[in-house]
Amino acid sequence: MLYAEPLSRLIGELSRLPTVGPRTAQRLAFHLLQAPMEEVEDLARAILDARKNMKFCSVCFNYTDCDPCALCQDTRRIQKILCVVADPRDVMAMERANEFRGIYHVLGGNISPMDGIGPDDLRIKELLERVNRGGVEEVIVATNPTVVGEATALYLSRLIKPLGVKVTRLAYGLPAGSDLEYADAVTLAKAMEGRRDL
Amino acid sequence: MLYAEPLSRLIGELSRLPTVGPRTAQRLAFHLLQAPMEEVEDLARAILDARKNMKFCSVCFNYTDCDPCALCQDTRRIQKILCVVADPRDVMAMERANEFRGIYHVLGGNISPMDGIGPDDLRIKELLERVNRGGVEEVIVATNPTVVGEATALYLSRLIKPLGVKVTRLAYGLPAGSDLEYADAVTLAKAMEGRRDL
Repeated sequence: MLYAEPLSRLIGELSRLPTVGPRTAQRLAFHLLQAPMEEVEDLARAILDARKNMKFCSVCFNYTDCDPCALCQDTRRIQKILCVVADPRDVMAMERANEFRGIYHVLGGNISPMDGIGPDDLRIKELLERVNRGGVEEVIVATNPTVVGEATALYLSRLIKPLGVKVTRLAYGLPAGSDLEYADAVTLAKAMEGRRDL
Repeated sequence: MLYAEPLSRLIGELSRLPTVGPRTAQRLAFHLLQAPMEEVEDLARAILDARKNMKFCSVCFNYTDCDPCALCQDTRRIQKILCVVADPRDVMAMERANEFRGIYHVLGGNISPMDGIGPDDLRIKELLERVNRGGVEEVIVATNPTVVGEATALYLSRLIKPLGVKVTRLAYGLPAGSDLEYADAVTLAKAMEGRRDL
Protein backbone atom coordinates (compact mmCIF):
# COMPACT_ATOMS: atom_id res chain seq x y z
CA MET A 1 0.00 0.00 0.00
CA LEU A 2 1.23 3.43 -0.95
CA TYR A 3 0.10 6.78 0.37
CA ALA A 4 -2.92 8.27 -1.36
CA GLU A 5 -2.00 10.10 -4.55
CA PRO A 6 -2.07 13.75 -3.32
CA LEU A 7 0.11 12.83 -0.34
CA SER A 8 2.60 10.68 -2.22
CA ARG A 9 2.85 13.36 -4.92
CA LEU A 10 3.61 15.98 -2.26
CA ILE A 11 6.26 13.73 -0.68
CA GLY A 12 7.75 13.21 -4.12
CA GLU A 13 7.90 16.93 -4.90
CA LEU A 14 9.42 17.75 -1.52
CA SER A 15 12.05 15.01 -1.99
CA ARG A 16 13.34 16.86 -5.04
CA LEU A 17 14.50 19.76 -2.87
CA PRO A 18 18.14 19.88 -1.76
CA THR A 19 18.83 18.66 1.81
CA VAL A 20 15.40 16.99 1.89
CA GLY A 21 15.59 13.19 2.01
CA PRO A 22 12.61 10.81 1.85
CA ARG A 23 12.06 10.84 5.63
CA THR A 24 12.20 14.62 5.91
CA ALA A 25 9.88 14.91 2.91
CA GLN A 26 7.41 12.63 4.68
CA ARG A 27 7.66 14.63 7.88
CA LEU A 28 7.18 17.93 6.06
CA ALA A 29 4.22 16.53 4.12
CA PHE A 30 2.43 15.35 7.26
CA HIS A 31 3.13 18.70 8.89
CA LEU A 32 1.51 20.47 5.93
CA LEU A 33 -1.54 18.18 6.03
CA GLN A 34 -2.31 19.27 9.56
CA ALA A 35 -1.16 22.87 9.31
CA PRO A 36 -3.79 25.64 9.13
CA MET A 37 -5.02 26.11 5.56
CA GLU A 38 -3.93 29.76 5.65
CA GLU A 39 -0.35 28.85 6.53
CA VAL A 40 -0.23 26.30 3.71
CA GLU A 41 -1.62 28.80 1.21
CA ASP A 42 0.91 31.40 2.38
CA LEU A 43 3.73 28.94 1.71
CA ALA A 44 2.48 27.99 -1.75
CA ARG A 45 1.99 31.65 -2.64
CA ALA A 46 5.43 32.64 -1.32
CA ILE A 47 7.01 29.92 -3.47
CA LEU A 48 5.26 31.08 -6.64
CA ASP A 49 5.71 34.80 -5.92
CA ALA A 50 9.42 34.46 -5.28
CA ARG A 51 9.99 32.37 -8.39
CA LYS A 52 7.94 34.74 -10.57
CA ASN A 53 9.04 38.11 -9.19
CA MET A 54 12.70 37.62 -8.37
CA LYS A 55 15.00 38.21 -11.31
CA PHE A 56 18.60 39.14 -11.92
CA CYS A 57 19.63 42.78 -11.55
CA SER A 58 20.77 43.91 -15.00
CA VAL A 59 23.73 45.73 -13.44
CA CYS A 60 25.19 43.42 -10.77
CA PHE A 61 23.26 40.16 -11.48
CA ASN A 62 22.22 39.71 -7.88
CA TYR A 63 18.65 38.51 -7.31
CA THR A 64 16.21 41.39 -7.04
CA ASP A 65 12.54 42.23 -7.41
CA CYS A 66 13.28 45.63 -8.96
CA ASP A 67 15.79 46.55 -11.63
CA PRO A 68 18.40 47.87 -10.94
CA CYS A 69 18.47 46.28 -7.48
CA ALA A 70 18.34 48.26 -4.25
CA LEU A 71 22.13 48.05 -3.84
CA CYS A 72 22.83 49.29 -7.36
CA GLN A 73 20.32 52.11 -6.90
CA ASP A 74 21.92 53.20 -3.63
CA THR A 75 23.98 56.28 -4.55
CA ARG A 76 25.68 56.27 -1.14
CA ARG A 77 27.61 53.13 -2.12
CA ILE A 78 31.20 53.80 -3.18
CA GLN A 79 31.08 53.33 -6.95
CA LYS A 80 34.80 52.96 -7.48
CA ILE A 81 35.27 49.76 -5.49
CA LEU A 82 33.66 46.70 -7.01
CA CYS A 83 33.42 43.40 -5.16
CA VAL A 84 33.08 40.27 -7.31
CA VAL A 85 31.34 37.27 -5.73
CA ALA A 86 30.31 33.90 -7.12
CA ASP A 87 26.84 33.63 -5.65
CA PRO A 88 23.98 35.96 -4.61
CA ARG A 89 24.25 34.52 -1.10
CA ASP A 90 27.79 35.86 -0.89
CA VAL A 91 26.47 39.40 -1.33
CA MET A 92 24.33 38.83 1.73
CA ALA A 93 27.31 37.42 3.67
CA MET A 94 29.38 40.51 2.77
CA GLU A 95 26.56 42.84 3.76
CA ARG A 96 26.20 41.09 7.09
CA ALA A 97 29.90 41.68 7.75
CA ASN A 98 29.05 45.39 7.41
CA GLU A 99 32.56 46.26 6.29
CA PHE A 100 32.21 46.87 2.56
CA ARG A 101 30.45 49.98 1.22
CA GLY A 102 31.20 49.58 -2.48
CA ILE A 103 29.24 47.89 -5.27
CA TYR A 104 28.92 44.24 -6.25
CA HIS A 105 29.09 41.97 -9.25
CA VAL A 106 27.68 38.43 -9.04
CA LEU A 107 29.34 35.93 -11.37
CA GLY A 108 26.75 33.21 -10.94
CA GLY A 109 29.31 30.53 -10.04
CA ASN A 110 32.96 29.68 -10.41
CA ILE A 111 34.89 28.50 -13.43
CA SER A 112 34.88 24.74 -13.02
CA PRO A 113 35.73 22.62 -16.07
CA MET A 114 34.92 19.49 -14.04
CA ASP A 115 31.31 20.68 -13.78
CA GLY A 116 31.29 21.94 -17.34
CA ILE A 117 31.24 25.60 -16.26
CA GLY A 118 33.45 27.78 -18.42
CA PRO A 119 34.00 31.55 -18.40
CA ASP A 120 31.15 32.03 -20.89
CA ASP A 121 28.67 30.51 -18.44
CA LEU A 122 29.40 33.26 -15.91
CA ARG A 123 28.82 37.03 -15.97
CA ILE A 124 32.46 37.71 -16.82
CA LYS A 125 31.79 39.53 -20.07
CA GLU A 126 29.38 41.81 -18.19
CA LEU A 127 32.00 42.39 -15.48
CA LEU A 128 34.59 43.46 -18.03
CA GLU A 129 32.06 45.78 -19.66
CA ARG A 130 31.40 47.42 -16.28
CA VAL A 131 35.11 47.87 -15.63
CA ASN A 132 35.72 49.15 -19.17
CA ARG A 133 32.95 51.72 -18.76
CA GLY A 134 35.30 53.40 -16.26
CA GLY A 135 34.90 54.66 -12.72
CA VAL A 136 36.05 51.45 -11.08
CA GLU A 137 39.45 51.77 -9.42
CA GLU A 138 39.61 48.51 -7.52
CA VAL A 139 38.10 45.10 -8.08
CA ILE A 140 38.01 42.92 -4.95
CA VAL A 141 37.75 39.30 -6.00
CA ALA A 142 35.76 37.65 -3.21
CA THR A 143 35.28 34.19 -4.69
CA ASN A 144 35.57 31.32 -2.19
CA PRO A 145 39.01 30.23 -0.89
CA THR A 146 38.58 26.91 -2.71
CA VAL A 147 40.23 25.40 -5.76
CA VAL A 148 37.54 26.65 -8.15
CA GLY A 149 37.27 30.01 -6.36
CA GLU A 150 41.02 30.50 -6.63
CA ALA A 151 41.08 29.51 -10.28
CA THR A 152 38.28 31.97 -11.03
CA ALA A 153 40.07 34.74 -9.13
CA LEU A 154 43.28 34.11 -11.06
CA TYR A 155 41.41 34.09 -14.36
CA LEU A 156 39.71 37.40 -13.54
CA SER A 157 42.88 39.11 -12.38
CA ARG A 158 44.56 38.26 -15.68
CA LEU A 159 41.71 39.89 -17.57
CA ILE A 160 41.25 42.95 -15.35
CA LYS A 161 44.82 43.96 -14.46
CA PRO A 162 45.68 44.85 -18.09
CA LEU A 163 42.79 47.36 -17.96
CA GLY A 164 44.81 49.35 -15.41
CA VAL A 165 42.52 48.52 -12.52
CA LYS A 166 43.76 47.34 -9.13
CA VAL A 167 42.72 43.75 -8.40
CA THR A 168 42.71 42.49 -4.81
CA ARG A 169 41.73 39.28 -3.09
CA LEU A 170 40.22 38.73 0.37
CA ALA A 171 42.83 37.81 2.99
CA TYR A 172 43.42 34.20 3.91
CA GLY A 173 44.00 33.48 7.58
CA LEU A 174 42.59 32.19 10.81
CA PRO A 175 38.86 32.66 11.27
CA ALA A 176 38.03 35.04 14.11
CA GLY A 177 37.38 33.25 17.39
CA SER A 178 38.93 30.03 16.13
CA ASP A 179 41.52 27.87 17.83
CA LEU A 180 45.06 27.61 16.42
CA GLU A 181 45.16 24.00 17.51
CA TYR A 182 42.31 23.10 15.19
CA ALA A 183 43.38 25.19 12.20
CA ASP A 184 44.20 23.10 9.15
CA ALA A 185 47.73 23.19 7.78
CA VAL A 186 46.88 25.15 4.63
CA THR A 187 45.04 27.87 6.56
CA LEU A 188 47.88 28.13 9.07
CA ALA A 189 50.50 28.33 6.33
CA LYS A 190 48.48 31.07 4.60
CA ALA A 191 48.10 32.92 7.91
CA MET A 192 51.88 32.83 8.41
CA GLU A 193 52.49 33.95 4.86
CA GLY A 194 50.06 36.84 5.24
CA ARG A 195 51.26 37.91 8.70
CA ARG A 196 51.18 41.62 9.44
CA ASP A 197 53.09 44.05 11.65
CA LEU A 198 51.60 44.59 15.07
CA MET B 1 20.16 45.36 3.71
CA LEU B 2 17.65 42.54 3.70
CA TYR B 3 16.69 40.28 0.88
CA ALA B 4 14.04 41.64 -1.47
CA GLU B 5 10.52 41.10 -0.15
CA PRO B 6 9.45 38.05 -2.23
CA LEU B 7 12.66 36.23 -1.33
CA SER B 8 12.67 37.12 2.37
CA ARG B 9 8.99 36.15 2.60
CA LEU B 10 9.75 32.77 1.03
CA ILE B 11 12.65 32.22 3.44
CA GLY B 12 10.34 33.15 6.30
CA GLU B 13 7.60 30.74 5.22
CA LEU B 14 10.09 27.90 4.71
CA SER B 15 11.59 28.55 8.16
CA ARG B 16 8.22 27.74 9.73
CA LEU B 17 8.49 24.13 8.57
CA PRO B 18 9.78 21.54 11.02
CA THR B 19 13.46 20.54 10.60
CA VAL B 20 14.05 23.65 8.45
CA GLY B 21 16.34 26.19 10.13
CA PRO B 22 17.18 29.64 8.74
CA ARG B 23 20.17 28.39 6.73
CA THR B 24 18.25 25.51 5.18
CA ALA B 25 15.36 27.85 4.41
CA GLN B 26 17.77 30.16 2.60
CA ARG B 27 19.28 27.28 0.68
CA LEU B 28 15.85 25.95 -0.33
CA ALA B 29 14.70 29.43 -1.35
CA PHE B 30 17.70 29.99 -3.61
CA HIS B 31 17.21 26.55 -5.08
CA LEU B 32 13.59 27.41 -5.91
CA LEU B 33 14.59 30.74 -7.50
CA GLN B 34 16.75 28.97 -10.04
CA ALA B 35 14.64 25.84 -10.48
CA PRO B 36 12.58 25.45 -13.67
CA MET B 37 9.25 27.26 -13.37
CA GLU B 38 7.39 24.02 -14.03
CA GLU B 39 9.06 22.26 -11.10
CA VAL B 40 8.23 25.17 -8.80
CA GLU B 41 4.61 25.20 -9.93
CA ASP B 42 4.39 21.43 -9.42
CA LEU B 43 5.60 21.86 -5.85
CA ALA B 44 3.17 24.67 -5.04
CA ARG B 45 0.31 22.71 -6.60
CA ALA B 46 1.24 19.50 -4.73
CA ILE B 47 1.24 21.42 -1.44
CA LEU B 48 -2.21 22.90 -2.04
CA ASP B 49 -3.69 19.71 -3.49
CA ALA B 50 -2.52 17.56 -0.61
CA ARG B 51 -3.79 20.02 2.01
CA LYS B 52 -7.15 20.39 0.25
CA ASN B 53 -7.82 16.79 -0.80
CA MET B 54 -6.42 14.74 2.03
CA LYS B 55 -8.87 14.21 4.88
CA PHE B 56 -9.43 11.74 7.67
CA CYS B 57 -11.07 8.41 6.88
CA SER B 58 -14.38 8.38 8.78
CA VAL B 59 -13.76 4.77 9.82
CA CYS B 60 -10.09 4.50 10.85
CA PHE B 61 -9.06 8.20 10.87
CA ASN B 62 -6.01 7.63 8.72
CA TYR B 63 -5.31 10.28 6.07
CA THR B 64 -7.04 9.50 2.80
CA ASP B 65 -8.28 11.12 -0.38
CA CYS B 66 -11.38 8.90 -0.54
CA ASP B 67 -13.76 7.93 2.25
CA PRO B 68 -13.61 5.21 3.55
CA CYS B 69 -9.90 4.89 2.84
CA ALA B 70 -8.41 2.20 0.60
CA LEU B 71 -7.47 0.05 3.60
CA CYS B 72 -10.95 0.21 5.13
CA GLN B 73 -12.51 -0.58 1.74
CA ASP B 74 -10.27 -3.61 1.26
CA THR B 75 -12.50 -6.58 2.08
CA ARG B 76 -9.52 -8.95 2.07
CA ARG B 77 -8.28 -7.40 5.31
CA ILE B 78 -9.07 -9.46 8.40
CA GLN B 79 -11.86 -7.50 10.05
CA LYS B 80 -11.61 -9.11 13.47
CA ILE B 81 -8.11 -7.91 14.32
CA LEU B 82 -7.81 -4.18 14.86
CA CYS B 83 -4.46 -2.44 15.25
CA VAL B 84 -4.47 0.87 17.13
CA VAL B 85 -1.72 3.35 16.27
CA ALA B 86 -1.06 6.92 17.36
CA ASP B 87 -0.14 8.45 14.03
CA PRO B 88 -0.99 7.96 10.33
CA ARG B 89 2.71 7.40 9.69
CA ASP B 90 2.57 4.37 11.94
CA VAL B 91 0.03 2.75 9.61
CA MET B 92 2.56 3.09 6.84
CA ALA B 93 5.31 1.63 9.05
CA MET B 94 3.11 -1.38 9.86
CA GLU B 95 2.21 -1.86 6.21
CA ARG B 96 5.86 -1.78 5.24
CA ALA B 97 6.53 -4.57 7.76
CA ASN B 98 4.05 -6.59 5.70
CA GLU B 99 3.09 -8.72 8.69
CA PHE B 100 -0.32 -7.43 9.66
CA ARG B 101 -3.40 -8.11 7.52
CA GLY B 102 -6.10 -6.72 9.83
CA ILE B 103 -7.63 -3.26 10.06
CA TYR B 104 -6.40 -0.05 11.69
CA HIS B 105 -7.52 2.72 13.97
CA VAL B 106 -5.52 5.95 14.17
CA LEU B 107 -5.78 7.78 17.49
CA GLY B 108 -4.21 11.01 16.30
CA GLY B 109 -1.64 11.11 19.10
CA ASN B 110 -0.99 9.82 22.59
CA ILE B 111 -2.51 10.85 25.88
CA SER B 112 -0.04 13.39 27.24
CA PRO B 113 -1.20 15.67 30.05
CA MET B 114 2.12 17.55 29.81
CA ASP B 115 1.18 18.61 26.28
CA GLY B 116 -2.45 19.18 27.23
CA ILE B 117 -3.64 16.13 25.25
CA GLY B 118 -6.35 14.22 27.06
CA PRO B 119 -8.42 11.19 25.97
CA ASP B 120 -11.08 13.47 24.48
CA ASP B 121 -8.54 14.95 22.07
CA LEU B 122 -7.94 11.53 20.51
CA ARG B 123 -10.22 9.18 18.52
CA ILE B 124 -10.82 6.99 21.57
CA LYS B 125 -14.60 7.38 21.64
CA GLU B 126 -14.68 6.35 17.99
CA LEU B 127 -12.46 3.35 18.75
CA LEU B 128 -14.81 2.16 21.48
CA GLU B 129 -17.77 2.59 19.13
CA ARG B 130 -16.04 0.41 16.54
CA VAL B 131 -15.28 -2.27 19.13
CA ASN B 132 -18.81 -2.07 20.54
CA ARG B 133 -20.28 -2.52 17.08
CA GLY B 134 -18.93 -6.08 17.30
CA GLY B 135 -16.84 -8.26 15.03
CA VAL B 136 -13.52 -7.24 16.58
CA GLU B 137 -11.91 -10.08 18.55
CA GLU B 138 -8.49 -8.61 19.22
CA VAL B 139 -7.20 -5.08 19.59
CA ILE B 140 -3.44 -4.77 19.10
CA VAL B 141 -2.25 -1.60 20.78
CA ALA B 142 0.68 -0.44 18.69
CA THR B 143 1.40 2.92 20.28
CA ASN B 144 5.09 3.77 20.65
CA PRO B 145 7.19 2.10 23.37
CA THR B 146 7.57 5.47 25.11
CA VAL B 147 6.15 6.88 28.33
CA VAL B 148 3.15 8.49 26.63
CA GLY B 149 2.66 5.51 24.30
CA GLU B 150 2.65 3.16 27.29
CA ALA B 151 0.24 5.33 29.24
CA THR B 152 -2.11 5.46 26.26
CA ALA B 153 -1.91 1.68 25.83
CA LEU B 154 -2.72 1.11 29.49
CA TYR B 155 -5.63 3.54 29.33
CA LEU B 156 -7.05 1.80 26.26
CA SER B 157 -6.68 -1.70 27.67
CA ARG B 158 -8.68 -0.67 30.75
CA LEU B 159 -11.50 0.53 28.54
CA ILE B 160 -11.48 -2.31 26.03
CA LYS B 161 -10.88 -5.41 28.16
CA PRO B 162 -14.23 -5.03 29.99
CA LEU B 163 -15.91 -5.25 26.58
CA GLY B 164 -14.71 -8.87 26.38
CA VAL B 165 -12.19 -8.19 23.64
CA LYS B 166 -8.61 -9.45 23.76
CA VAL B 167 -6.10 -6.57 24.05
CA THR B 168 -2.48 -7.17 23.05
CA ARG B 169 0.62 -5.03 22.84
CA LEU B 170 3.55 -5.21 20.41
CA ALA B 171 6.53 -7.09 21.82
CA TYR B 172 9.41 -5.22 23.38
CA GLY B 173 12.87 -6.54 22.63
CA LEU B 174 16.04 -6.17 20.67
CA PRO B 175 15.67 -4.59 17.24
CA ALA B 176 16.54 -6.99 14.42
CA GLY B 177 20.13 -6.67 13.26
CA SER B 178 21.14 -4.73 16.35
CA ASP B 179 24.08 -5.34 18.64
CA LEU B 180 23.56 -6.57 22.21
CA GLU B 181 26.49 -4.46 23.30
CA TYR B 182 24.73 -1.28 22.29
CA ALA B 183 21.25 -2.14 23.56
CA ASP B 184 20.06 0.16 26.33
CA ALA B 185 19.36 -1.34 29.74
CA VAL B 186 15.57 -0.99 29.56
CA THR B 187 15.35 -2.69 26.17
CA LEU B 188 17.62 -5.49 27.33
CA ALA B 189 15.62 -6.00 30.51
CA LYS B 190 12.40 -6.12 28.49
CA ALA B 191 13.98 -8.56 26.05
CA MET B 192 14.94 -10.86 28.94
CA GLU B 193 11.50 -10.57 30.45
CA GLY B 194 9.84 -11.39 27.15
CA ARG B 195 12.19 -14.28 26.23
CA ARG B 196 10.71 -17.21 24.39
CA ASP B 197 11.42 -20.94 24.06
CA LEU B 198 13.69 -21.88 21.23
